[in-house]
Amino acid sequence: MSSPLRRTVRGMRDLLPEEAEHMRLIEMEAREVARLYGYREVITPLIEHYELLAAKIGEENRKRMYVFEDLGGRRVALRPEFTASIARLVSTKMVAEPKPIRLFSVGSLYRYDEPQFGRYREFWQANYELIGSSRPEADAEILSLSNDLLKKTGLEDYYFKVGHVGVLRGILSEEGVKEAEQNRIMQLLDKKMQDEALNILKKQASERCLETLRRLFKVSGREWSRVIKEMNASVEGYEEASSAVENLEAILNLTSDAKMDLNVRVEAGFARGLEYYTGMIFEVYVPGMDIALGGGGRYDRLIELFGGGPTPASGVALGIDRIMLAVKGRRPGWTPTWEGLRVLVLPVNEEVKGKAMELSSRLREKGVTVEVEVMGRRVSRALSDASRRRVTHVVIIGPKELREGKVVLRDMKNKEQRTVTVDEVADMLEGLQSGSSRISL
Amino acid sequence: MSSPLRRTVRGMRDLLPEEAEHMRLIEMEAREVARLYGYREVITPLIEHYELLAAKIGEENRKRMYVFEDLGGRRVALRPEFTASIARLVSTKMVAEPKPIRLFSVGSLYRYDEPQFGRYREFWQANYELIGSSRPEADAEILSLSNDLLKKTGLEDYYFKVGHVGVLRGILSEEGVKEAEQNRIMQLLDKKMQDEALNILKKQASERCLETLRRLFKVSGREWSRVIKEMNASVEGYEEASSAVENLEAILNLTSDAKMDLNVRVEAGFARGLEYYTGMIFEVYVPGMDIALGGGGRYDRLIELFGGGPTPASGVALGIDRIMLAVKGRRPGWTPTWEGLRVLVLPVNEEVKGKAMELSSRLREKGVTVEVEVMGRRVSRALSDASRRRVTHVVIIGPKELREGKVVLRDMKNKEQRTVTVDEVADMLEGLQSGSSRISL
Repeated sequence: MSSPLRRTVRGMRDLLPEEAEHMRLIEMEAREVARLYGYREVITPLIEHYELLAAKIGEENRKRMYVFEDLGGRRVALRPEFTASIARLVSTKMVAEPKPIRLFSVGSLYRYDEPQFGRYREFWQANYELIGSSRPEADAEILSLSNDLLKKTGLEDYYFKVGHVGVLRGILSEEGVKEAEQNRIMQLLDKKMQDEALNILKKQASERCLETLRRLFKVSGREWSRVIKEMNASVEGYEEASSAVENLEAILNLTSDAKMDLNVRVEAGFARGLEYYTGMIFEVYVPGMDIALGGGGRYDRLIELFGGGPTPASGVALGIDRIMLAVKGRRPGWTPTWEGLRVLVLPVNEEVKGKAMELSSRLREKGVTVEVEVMGRRVSRALSDASRRRVTHVVIIGPKELREGKVVLRDMKNKEQRTVTVDEVADMLEGLQSGSSRISL
Repeated sequence: MSSPLRRTVRGMRDLLPEEAEHMRLIEMEAREVARLYGYREVITPLIEHYELLAAKIGEENRKRMYVFEDLGGRRVALRPEFTASIARLVSTKMVAEPKPIRLFSVGSLYRYDEPQFGRYREFWQANYELIGSSRPEADAEILSLSNDLLKKTGLEDYYFKVGHVGVLRGILSEEGVKEAEQNRIMQLLDKKMQDEALNILKKQASERCLETLRRLFKVSGREWSRVIKEMNASVEGYEEASSAVENLEAILNLTSDAKMDLNVRVEAGFARGLEYYTGMIFEVYVPGMDIALGGGGRYDRLIELFGGGPTPASGVALGIDRIMLAVKGRRPGWTPTWEGLRVLVLPVNEEVKGKAMELSSRLREKGVTVEVEVMGRRVSRALSDASRRRVTHVVIIGPKELREGKVVLRDMKNKEQRTVTVDEVADMLEGLQSGSSRISL
């Protein structure tokens, strides 16, 4: 193991220029989706009180939080997700805003997970929360915007795994299973430990309940109308669960009516690790990657916990670095800025260095990416270095040409060069720049 | 004090939508400056080994770091600045890259300072590092791009406070003052405790040295050529210090030759808290705000500390949230997205909800910000709510109009409405959108 001065902390990573640019591109696309749907961005702190972040995050996630005391002795933690902070904000500083409130956040989050493919201890999410509506169109909107963002990033074969916590919790509630115990069951289901969940229930629930759950756990599939029928049949007699199935059907119906063309796989036994969900939940997957690209759902009782009145809400967090991983290699049609037009301005001697910087500024005002030679190299060395660095054009500034208001423009690809006026070089490079590929939405 | 569920941790803060949008705008402007100067963005972890971050940060900053043990027992810290991480990256993963290397970073940083106006424990910086050149044109480039970013953000009356650590350290080195002791002196000078610095030196340095420093501390002013002359006269006989003054003069000469039109105030006795500086240093100020908007300088020995060979470098970090504060109120010519075109799509009954979502998608494809009614309200209530929310246009979807491929478009300002085809409404709103103010560079 090398010195701590030379390596990142386990679970952390560096994003080098091409990866960083790809990630920022996805971030900007996420921000554009937010704008299109009317979600306003808020920026909440990365460090919050431990109690806030731990409140409803679920046992598994709680154990993996980065918790510490700050220098003032406060017990704080690094956020493992955005929703708690947004709930705090909505129930305090934004409590007077008319509902619905649509909020967007993006940034890094921290969980002490075992590092593995696609799972780091520092990761990035784009987070959308729609607050104030309990209706199926709110859930459908969350699915719709998730789908729009995923499409924008160039992903094709992703699908939405969809369930409804209200179905499972509805059955358990009617059986008198306490909330803490329900949470434990949900944690097990999240880890696909269905037998363990049923074992725990054996002591507290009726045989009918166990039978219903056993049946439900087998219900899944891509043709959602069939799956909904089977769910309905399975939960017959459980009133809350039945209306939860109805709610799920209404949401999925809306996605069809709105022609969202969602790739959906409904799983009746699906639960998520976050404790605060109360309704429809979902996760996004691509084939060949067994971690979710993101997930979300309805959480109708979280915000009132923080002091607001009853405030239904639905939301989603999409993993920016995971999407980047899923896009695999370079996305179609995208070229990093670095591979576009790159201009080097090269003064031939000390005397014209200032002029070289002045001309560079002028070119930058036209939007052109301009590097200035800062190594004090001779022209020949600087030129050979420039081709190593994929510079496309070199503007050579010499005192003789400069006296006539001219410079030498060298095209590094065909190695041709000609003497042109300063105005000409500015116009030519501006023209090339506007045709050059760069980040744009 | 209210519940930890309802407040941010001391020193942290929430940025509500308008502030968040302004901050993202400055971040994008910083990224655009990076592109124009050929700085590629890298993303390094927020959590690094304590040893890395503490190495050369300086005594004062070290005491204010957020340090803790992670669950694996590693001693880690939240980054208080970017430069250490960049130095690590350059001396490891980027060691084979041809010099110069130009790198950009942006994000949040953490210091346990006493909260005060403009000083939070979580703050944001745009950071630029130019690595591999020891020449004055590199320092001049750092000043130039700082100036470009500050201009872009709409600031007008800022100035650069400029000094040169090499002058002070040069004198102390020739007097045989050890590096650790020099660092202590720099910390005191950073806090403008010049008398204390001189007192410490009384035991270790000659009367001539003390006299030279006393003289230097008085040398400052906006006409830099006069100040340079006075500095030169003050350090006469100190060889290293004299060539440091020469270096500073060369840098400032370049900024003049390049017509940067920098507002500079040179202060010979100026030092910064970060220990790694070796050459020209600077900070940016605006009148009426006694904290710096940013600062930077040359650090020629930091990277080799992390295992690279000798690697001269120069850089700058500009405080995004501080710039936002300095712009005061709203910047000229900028309107938050939220005050531009805002469309509400409003289905008159349950039956057409899916259609409303479908049309919304179609409008969003044209770049229009569209919210859909998700509260299940009647038309009249939804309309009165819409005007409270500053919605500019409402598209009302009714089954009767829909059968003829039409919808009702209501202009909320003049309260006029008319029935138009779906194609017409899409074209009209697209036209309004492209004329509407939104973030653009």
